[in-house]
Parts: sequence; C-alpha cells; structure tokens
Amino acid sequence: MSGGIAADDLAARLAGLEGIGETPEGIVRLAWTPEDAACRAWFAAQARALGRTAEADPAGNLWAPPPDAPAPWWGAGSHLDSVRGGGRFDGPLGVAAAFAIAERATVPVAVLCLADEEGARYNTPTFGSRALVGRLDAAEAVARTDDRGIALGDALRAAGVDPDGLARAPEWLARLRGFLELHIDQTRELATAGRAAGAVSGLAARLRLQVDVDGQADHAGTTPPAERRDAMSAAARLIVAAENAAGRGGAIRVTASRILVAPNALTTIAGHVRLWLDARAAGLAAVDGWLDAVRGEAAAIAARTRTEIAIHVASRSAGTPFDPRVRAALGGGDELLSFAGHDAGVLAERIPAGMVFVRNPTGISHAPAEAVDLGDAAAGATAMLRALEELAA
Amino acid sequence: MSGGIAADDLAARLAGLEGIGETPEGIVRLAWTPEDAACRAWFAAQARALGRTAEADPAGNLWAPPPDAPAPWWGAGSHLDSVRGGGRFDGPLGVAAAFAIAERATVPVAVLCLADEEGARYNTPTFGSRALVGRLDAAEAVARTDDRGIALGDALRAAGVDPDGLARAPEWLARLRGFLELHIDQTRELATAGRAAGAVSGLAARLRLQVDVDGQADHAGTTPPAERRDAMSAAARLIVAAENAAGRGGAIRVTASRILVAPNALTTIAGHVRLWLDARAAGLAAVDGWLDAVRGEAAAIAARTRTEIAIHVASRSAGTPFDPRVRAALGGGDELLSFAGHDAGVLAERIPAGMVFVRNPTGISHAPAEAVDLGDAAAGATAMLRALEELAA
Repeated sequence: MSGGIAADDLAARLAGLEGIGETPEGIVRLAWTPEDAACRAWFAAQARALGRTAEADPAGNLWAPPPDAPAPWWGAGSHLDSVRGGGRFDGPLGVAAAFAIAERATVPVAVLCLADEEGARYNTPTFGSRALVGRLDAAEAVARTDDRGIALGDALRAAGVDPDGLARAPEWLARLRGFLELHIDQTRELATAGRAAGAVSGLAARLRLQVDVDGQADHAGTTPPAERRDAMSAAARLIVAAENAAGRGGAIRVTASRILVAPNALTTIAGHVRLWLDARAAGLAAVDGWLDAVRGEAAAIAARTRTEIAIHVASRSAGTPFDPRVRAALGGGDELLSFAGHDAGVLAERIPAGMVFVRNPTGISHAPAEAVDLGDAAAGATAMLRALEELAA
Repeated sequence: MSGGIAADDLAARLAGLEGIGETPEGIVRLAWTPEDAACRAWFAAQARALGRTAEADPAGNLWAPPPDAPAPWWGAGSHLDSVRGGGRFDGPLGVAAAFAIAERATVPVAVLCLADEEGARYNTPTFGSRALVGRLDAAEAVARTDDRGIALGDALRAAGVDPDGLARAPEWLARLRGFLELHIDQTRELATAGRAAGAVSGLAARLRLQVDVDGQADHAGTTPPAERRDAMSAAARLIVAAENAAGRGGAIRVTASRILVAPNALTTIAGHVRLWLDARAAGLAAVDGWLDAVRGEAAAIAARTRTEIAIHVASRSAGTPFDPRVRAALGGGDELLSFAGHDAGVLAERIPAGMVFVRNPTGISHAPAEAVDLGDAAAGATAMLRALEELAA
C-alpha cells in the first residue's frame, strides 16, 4: 500500500495555476480560450513531471496515461475550465488530486482533464465527457456561437481540435476500466456533518426549461395597464410561481439565474423575455410534477398579462447512480447526493464511476467565495487512492 | 391667414429620412452616431430648402431660425433621435411638421431639433432641452459611457459639440418666445375618442427608481433553499409587488423594463441584480404613496430572500402643466395628459410651451408598430400653425 497524500503536495500542484484567468470578479477560464490553453499547458507540465506524455483525444480531453502499463486503466481527474467568476477549486482540485494519486498509486492510474465541463461559453456543460460516451450532438454543438459570435467549431479548430473528429471520441473510452473524480462539496453538507470528505451516491434528477415570453414592445409610460403585453411582468410572475411550486423543504431546488430581455430599455415595455428555469430533485417524479404545476401557472400568467409563454424542455435527466462496487471501495455508508452535474456522472452511463466530495466551509461554489482546506482535500484524495488500489487490484 | 398643411407635404419631408438607421428590429438612430448625423444633414437640407441656415447651439440642438426677423421668435420642433428599435414618427413627425409650419406661417417661426431626446444611448433623456433650461448636470453627463465604453464627452466631441461649452446653452433660450411640439399620441386615447389630434394639458408626475439587489452568487443546483441569497428571486418578487402596489385602473402606471443580472449564467444563482422601476401618475401624491408601499414590500422581500435591496430615486418630477395661453390658442377644452416626457415639457419650465398629439391607431410607440395617418398629422400641424399665428401676432 502506498503512503497517503499530503496537503502540501496538492498546494504545490495548484500553485502552477495561479494567475490564470484571475479577475476582480473571480476566476474566468472559459473553454477554448487563451486561459484554457494556459491550464492545458499546466496539465502537460504535470504529466511531464510524472514521466508521462499528455495526449488530447478527439474531443480535446487531456489524458496523462501510465507510460508502462497497457490499457485499460482506471482513470482519475476532473476539469480545468471555470464559469465566469468562479473559484479556485471547482475542477482544478480534482485534477491536482489525480496527479498526486497517480504518482503514489501502486496500480496504474490515468489522469484526465475533461474538456469544457462548465459549458459556460457555449452552454455545452460536460462537453468532453458527453463526447466520450457518444452522447454529444456534435453537429448541433459546433454551430453554437458565444457572446462574441464565435462558433464553437471555429473555437475548437483554433484550439487544435478537429470538429469533424468529435464522433471518434468514444473509441477512447475503451482505454478506461472506470473513473473517479474528487470535487469540492457544493453544499455545506459535509461541513455541517463535521466530515472532511465523503463518497457520493450519484447525481440528482434534473430538468432545465427554456421559457420564451412574447409580449409587445411599447412605451413604458403611456401604455395603459389594460393594453399592455409586458413580457417582463409575465417573466417575473413566472419566476415567483416556479419557486413557489417547488414547495418548502428543499426536496426540489428551483433556480432562475439567466434572463435575456429585449429591448431591455428604460422607456420601452419588454417585448420579449427568454429565461431559463432549472429544477433538481432526488428523482424524476418530483421534477415532472413540478413541471406540470409550472405549465399551469404559465397558462394563467399568459392570460393575465396578454402574453404568450412557450416552455421548452431543454434537458431532462433521470439522474445517475454510481457503481455499487466503486461506492463500496470508497467506504459507502453515509453518502451524499450530488445536485450538480459532473463528468463522473456522465461517464457513469458507460463505465463504473464514482466521486469523492471534499468539505467546503462556505458551501459556495461557482463564485470566488468557494473554500477548501487542503488537509481535507488530501484526506479525500487518500481515500480515492485507496479505492483505486482496491478496484484495480 | 395662411393655407393649411397637406399630408403630402409631410410625406415628402419624411421621405428624406427613409433608410437611416432602419434595422429588422425597427429604427435605431441613437444620439451622436452616424445615423444621428444623417438625420442632422436632413435637417440642414430642410432648412436650406426654406432659405434658412441650420445652426447648432452649444448643446448640439439644431436651429433653423427665420432669416429676416429679429429674435425672439416662437419655435416649433421635436427630435430626430430614436430608441433602439423605434418607429418612424416619434420625433421626426414633429420636426417635419415644424418645417411645414415655418414655410406657411404668416409670422416668423424658428424650427428646432432638440438633441438626444430619447436618451437611449446614455440614459440622458431630453438632453438638449435640459441643457437649454440650465438643468443639465454637464460634468456628470459627459462622463457617462455607452454599451461600448464610449464616454458621452467623446461622442459629443466627435459630433462637433464641445463638452466644455454645454453651460452656455441657456443663453440661446432667450431667442425663443415660446415653443410648440407636435407628437404622435403614445396611447389609443385619441383613436378611441375618434379625434385626429388634440392639445395636451401637461406632463404627468413621474418617479424613476434604480434598485440594487445584492445576493450571493452560488451554485444553481446544489445550494439548499434556506442558504440561498438569490438576487433574481428577490428582483422578480419586487417587480410583482411594485405592479400590485399600483392598484388597478391605471391611475398609476408602473413599468419594469430594464434589468441587469450578474453573472446571468445558467448554473450560478444571481449574485446581483440592478433593475429600474418607472411610475407615472397625474400628481406626485400618487407616485409618492406608491413609493412608500414599494419600500415596505422591498423590506419584506429582502428579509425573506436574505438579500439586500437598495432603492435609489433616480429622478422625480412633479409634472409640468403647459402655459394656459398656449393651451387656449390650441383649442383647450378636451385635453390630454402626457404620461411620457417631452422636450416641450422641459422647455415649459422656462418659457410658454405646449403640445399637440396626433392620433396613433395602434397606441404603440417606441416600437416599429407605431402608426400615423399623415392626414391626421396635417390636421394637427394646421391647428399648431393657427395657434402660432395667434400667439405671435
């Protein structure tokens, strides 16, 4: 059995990412940007220090495979891209831990950096892992454009990824026996329980709605209430109704966090609003029941505001339980449910996978206030190291 | 007495503006842009056709003064800038009518184009008329930046207006005995009453609030409801509460039409929202009572959502009654109250002023669907011509 992983080891690895994409609003390392390229260069340097060579698969996922053991191997890793204004640990902590694990493990462990996990630039979350399991609609994805009008296909090409080759990514999945990911807890669940780290049972069911509200752009002062078709008014009422439909207690978590208003002017009633509603719960029945309630509320609000409200199910996932053998190797028992999506959850659709969460005292993620004690992270990484040595034996 | 004004005359003048700033979303002629410059060139050509020379005052307002009569004169006019995605008549109709009136009037009438009436680029509505009455905070205004980061001071300089000279604009107001403005009705009030045009009694009282909601950016899926500080949720609840506080019947008109959300991402709870609330009514007592109610609602929403809500009164106007002699000359009697701001309302703070509204069958303005029958506009312009001949006699 190998020795455990030290906090100093993780700190030294993470130090190499400092300064990349740091802004007053937090970390900004969007996929296929110069900041992303700088992170990928760090990955290659970490691989070299381990005597390995970094390889990119057809989806731009980075691999640091064991140099002297034939595939398939167990893999460990996470992602290096961030949301706009994120923190330092969501993603990089799992990649740094994977390098530390690969260095110490008595079994061959491949290190992976999955591409564009956050999907913040093109609304393509878990891009790389979906490509690996063959669930990426490449033709649709590459046509998407970012805020500056740059198509994903062009961004991929500029980053050295051939968009026409995305369909070949699943061939690479055969190189993995399974996959483990270490990640910060995105709640205060571990902190409240006083635990440094914990195994994850699986991913929650999830529904994402895209809602289009059509009203009529008109003068903000002069139009009498009875003649208004105010898309902003309808959208505000729908957000409140969608939250109320989730009920209390947190079994269903509903968020409206993105809204686009046209013309978004001081003197013109909103003619059109697009907003997104996100709902997560332990199972699909709960989110589907919530959707029924939201549709009913939307019909009433549309009638009242003389607008048209179209609800489109942008994505719907039943959730993903992790592999029982992996969960047992990680200690099982008092497990956590992940309300967020993760690459490990996507890969779990095709290969055994699991996750370890690390205590986050603030419970905050996707923001600079996310926090981790690297001693906690080292404990989680050591548990993952032990599990990999058991699973690969 | 001169002859009346014909619809064809107005049509011929307005034809000269066709093609300027026309987009699929409507007319876009923001102040101090190339589109604005093209409109100003049209103004100069209209002046030349009348044997006049166009002059710009220190605020960039355009004047076509009578060539052979000493100041002060009565003035007529409106504006040529638009909102983003506006219609063809809001502004230009009043300038075209003023040229037609000046051509036919038996008394000297100066034609004016007031600068940046909509204020859509810098949130500086009635920029030119406020400069004329000495109510423009020039130092504050010129530092404002547009969506592309261009300061108003630089935009003014590029358009040939010296920002350091703005304080001299009031000297030019002495050239006017009074001012009349023809404008489309921004309601269906005239259409419903079956009237082609009508005199305006004055401008409604108005309150504009800038509201800042501070929450906490956090993961959209994982954060339990009890730990959220969701600025979007608070903002949506405040919009609904502000509308409800206006009561029914339309005596107070409340609009939320502009919202800025940070980070406005799919996977991150909104950490900050800035939104604007606009309220208008016949008198200040009504809007002040509404504001009291909104402050109370905001406090309750802030407590419930664990956010901080700061309400800043961005502007507050008691409304402006027009000059009784002007109103009598325009026929008085069955007058309209304007729920929108206008240059004539600003100039009325210092000189006799008045307005004529022209029937708009759709009641829509600040959008491409605004509509005018030029026969109605000609009737309104003829009434204004007669009033000017009476007032200037």
